[in-house]
Amino acid sequence: MVFLKDDERLDYLLAEDLRIIQSPSVFAFSLDAVLLARFVYVPIQKGNLVDLCSGNGVIPLFLSVRTKGTITGVEIQERLYDMAVRSIEYNGLQDRLKMIHGDIKNMPKLLGHGNFDVVTCNPPYFVTPSTGEINLNEHLAIARHEIHCTLEDAISVSSQLVRQGGKVAFVHRPGRLLDIISLMRKYRLEPKRIQFVYPKIGKEANTLLVEAIKDGSPDLKILPPIIVYNEDNEYTPEIRGILYGEK
Amino acid sequence: MVFLKDDERLDYLLAEDLRIIQSPSVFAFSLDAVLLARFVYVPIQKGNLVDLCSGNGVIPLFLSVRTKGTITGVEIQERLYDMAVRSIEYNGLQDRLKMIHGDIKNMPKLLGHGNFDVVTCNPPYFVTPSTGEINLNEHLAIARHEIHCTLEDAISVSSQLVRQGGKVAFVHRPGRLLDIISLMRKYRLEPKRIQFVYPKIGKEANTLLVEAIKDGSPDLKILPPIIVYNEDNEYTPEIRGILYGEK
Repeated sequence: MVFLKDDERLDYLLAEDLRIIQSPSVFAFSLDAVLLARFVYVPIQKGNLVDLCSGNGVIPLFLSVRTKGTITGVEIQERLYDMAVRSIEYNGLQDRLKMIHGDIKNMPKLLGHGNFDVVTCNPPYFVTPSTGEINLNEHLAIARHEIHCTLEDAISVSSQLVRQGGKVAFVHRPGRLLDIISLMRKYRLEPKRIQFVYPKIGKEANTLLVEAIKDGSPDLKILPPIIVYNEDNEYTPEIRGILYGEK
Repeated sequence: MVFLKDDERLDYLLAEDLRIIQSPSVFAFSLDAVLLARFVYVPIQKGNLVDLCSGNGVIPLFLSVRTKGTITGVEIQERLYDMAVRSIEYNGLQDRLKMIHGDIKNMPKLLGHGNFDVVTCNPPYFVTPSTGEINLNEHLAIARHEIHCTLEDAISVSSQLVRQGGKVAFVHRPGRLLDIISLMRKYRLEPKRIQFVYPKIGKEANTLLVEAIKDGSPDLKILPPIIVYNEDNEYTPEIRGILYGEK
């Protein structure tokens, strides 16, 4: 039994046999979150994972299928935190998925330094614009703009939470590649795997996936391109497999 | 009339109706050079271009088809410089293509600071290994290893030669992405366009093209992926077009 509020829906995470609470006016997960949850390295049998800027908990839910470890989600917006908690309960995952309602900047104090094997983050993409331009929907504005959390905050906190040799994975826009790389290196996170997502063959990349290792040695790979749509504007087999579990 | 020496061949630059002198034991141009010559921004009607680590002059020759400007090639190996000079003469391009036999590190003094609209460079890819591992063929070793020219040398010299607002384009291995970006920014070259070359869909990128603007503002684009081979291991239409002029 799940209590849906306002315009919330109980959507399928199709490939994973899970359900997730979403709301078009508050938060709905994006393909980027799904791609990050699939991209990141995860220990299979056990481990301690944390997802920052967790929204409605889509990344912890997806990760729960890939690992038997424990996963902590951190979300600053109470409305989204509450959706995530209810989704976790609906899926019966509360024994190893936990949500924290709070500011990521307080997490190193709360959760300790170097206690996580893996940190994931799908941060707000946009530098905070002038008040006039900002999204008037506060929930969407906080999720999309760097109001409570800049990219440097997110990378600094990730570096504090992850153990030496642990993994930190982010998804962002390609336009921020240089910032992400510089900031990661500033906080002793060495980028090791980068993957670009192109909406179509012949189009510029619109999403960037990057995974770094705390105190890792320099050795970067650019993984195979992910192409989202084919020439007929249908999902490619790779994306259908990710979203719907089709082979 | 062209004088070929030793095992030299007079090869076609197929798409361009040009000929180029090559030698399997000394130097033959790579797809990377062709891709760089096509990737870089060039002024069409006039301009002052320079190509560093020019080898047998393949990039100046290719660029001569895209611009009516003047192009200077710099090559430290006399044997390769000599091949380039003869190729330029064979194609009747000596009025606006010039080769310099010298060390790129001396070029700012020789050619002046800020006199070029465009700088291209296909530098040696490999950090100089221990003497035991290095290519015993001296010509190939110098072309492939950072013996006379490190990546930092090439980027520093490019920054000195290019005018403010001018373009600097490099081709390199993706594993050096972080170094290239850091060094470019160190020398006031802001990366604006990056393109990855993947040998095949499903394979990691093996080549990186990057263009920066001297004192440019940060705004990076990741251009559409270049895929070299299709699933049957034949060149894709895009590569056939580049190499053979097929549409």
